[in-house]
Amino acid sequence: MRTRFQQGLDELREKLLKMGGMAEQAVDRACQAYRERDLSLCHRVLENESQINAAERDIDGVALDLLAMQQPMAIDLRFILAVVKINADLERVGDQAVNIAERVMDMMELPPAELPVDVPRMASAASAMVQRALESFIEGKAELAQAVLEMDNVVDRMRDEAFISLVRTMNQNPAVTRQALDALLIARNLERVADHATNIAEDVIFWVRGADVRHSFGIQSTLGGAS
Amino acid sequence: MRTRFQQGLDELREKLLKMGGMAEQAVDRACQAYRERDLSLCHRVLENESQINAAERDIDGVALDLLAMQQPMAIDLRFILAVVKINADLERVGDQAVNIAERVMDMMELPPAELPVDVPRMASAASAMVQRALESFIEGKAELAQAVLEMDNVVDRMRDEAFISLVRTMNQNPAVTRQALDALLIARNLERVADHATNIAEDVIFWVRGADVRHSFGIQSTLGGAS
Repeated sequence: MRTRFQQGLDELREKLLKMGGMAEQAVDRACQAYRERDLSLCHRVLENESQINAAERDIDGVALDLLAMQQPMAIDLRFILAVVKINADLERVGDQAVNIAERVMDMMELPPAELPVDVPRMASAASAMVQRALESFIEGKAELAQAVLEMDNVVDRMRDEAFISLVRTMNQNPAVTRQALDALLIARNLERVADHATNIAEDVIFWVRGADVRHSFGIQSTLGGAS
Repeated sequence: MRTRFQQGLDELREKLLKMGGMAEQAVDRACQAYRERDLSLCHRVLENESQINAAERDIDGVALDLLAMQQPMAIDLRFILAVVKINADLERVGDQAVNIAERVMDMMELPPAELPVDVPRMASAASAMVQRALESFIEGKAELAQAVLEMDNVVDRMRDEAFISLVRTMNQNPAVTRQALDALLIARNLERVADHATNIAEDVIFWVRGADVRHSFGIQSTLGGAS
């Protein structure tokens, strides 16, 4: 029984990594679509959303089955709960990719404009955060996850800079207001991708620290105070 | 043992409702701050964020303890997982309230501007969605949750309308670009509150439908196909 449960945990981990790959790819594609003004890439991002949603439901189902299968140990429980939460964040990374693709589609109806924002740089920073957060999860390392939390400030600063320069552009050149606004919203979507990576990193810390807590004084006792 | 577990479930439900109340209140306060240009309300929203975060961790802890306490039945498992997910969404509703409060603080450094967006109307629609989603959860009614999903389109349309008219304002009156942009971002934050309500409603459906699934053919068998 334990072996089958262990297999289930491995399956859960693999499925989550695959889900992470899909979400990252969606962000990368949406930003490539921005760079290359490629409508077909936008459509691919939109089409893949349902796959990502299906993967989310599948992972939740496996998590639920594992919880129902036997009474997991506290460390496994925390792992499974972390997966459920990371799963939800990855699905929303996919949503952000869809939002970016929609903004790119809007921009493509307008004349191209030179804008003071480095979307590809911001995209690779946000995407790297998701990747590192997943790495910290695979390796179960709280210190890697901690590094992700620090990267979040960098992306926030990029967003603030983009915000300031794009508002200036709107003021100085109202003809490109809509393009500037699209770019600003893309920057905001990328900031949200970074936020989801931060959430994932926090869940990894919750899971890893939980392991420590369990080793030191046991986790089952904390409900004692409940009325 | 069963009774203590049942008490734990009740505690979990109550804590989640309290958390929901805090998140809703944060949104309402942020929007009141917008209406009344009230800096002290903005500060209160910012200060309450840490309470909401602490409530989130507390609820996760109780959920974990319940899972560790005994082998829950499938229906209870689904309930606990739904709580964990709804909890994460409520925490992010609180984050949106903070974002709104920050935008209001930015606006208050600028001259007031007449803007073509009904933030209070949008806020009450988004807030009502959160409330209804929580109601559907308390009553365990999928059809109430379904109604929340339909309300999401209304808020999305409000956001689109706000988007279009505010871009027009930016073009016609560049002097109020920044105010218009703040309002646009607030509209977007409210749209995200509505999205979180939608997520909560989906989790309620997952939980309630799961109950049906369990009654018809049992839930523990689905992992069978896993490699």
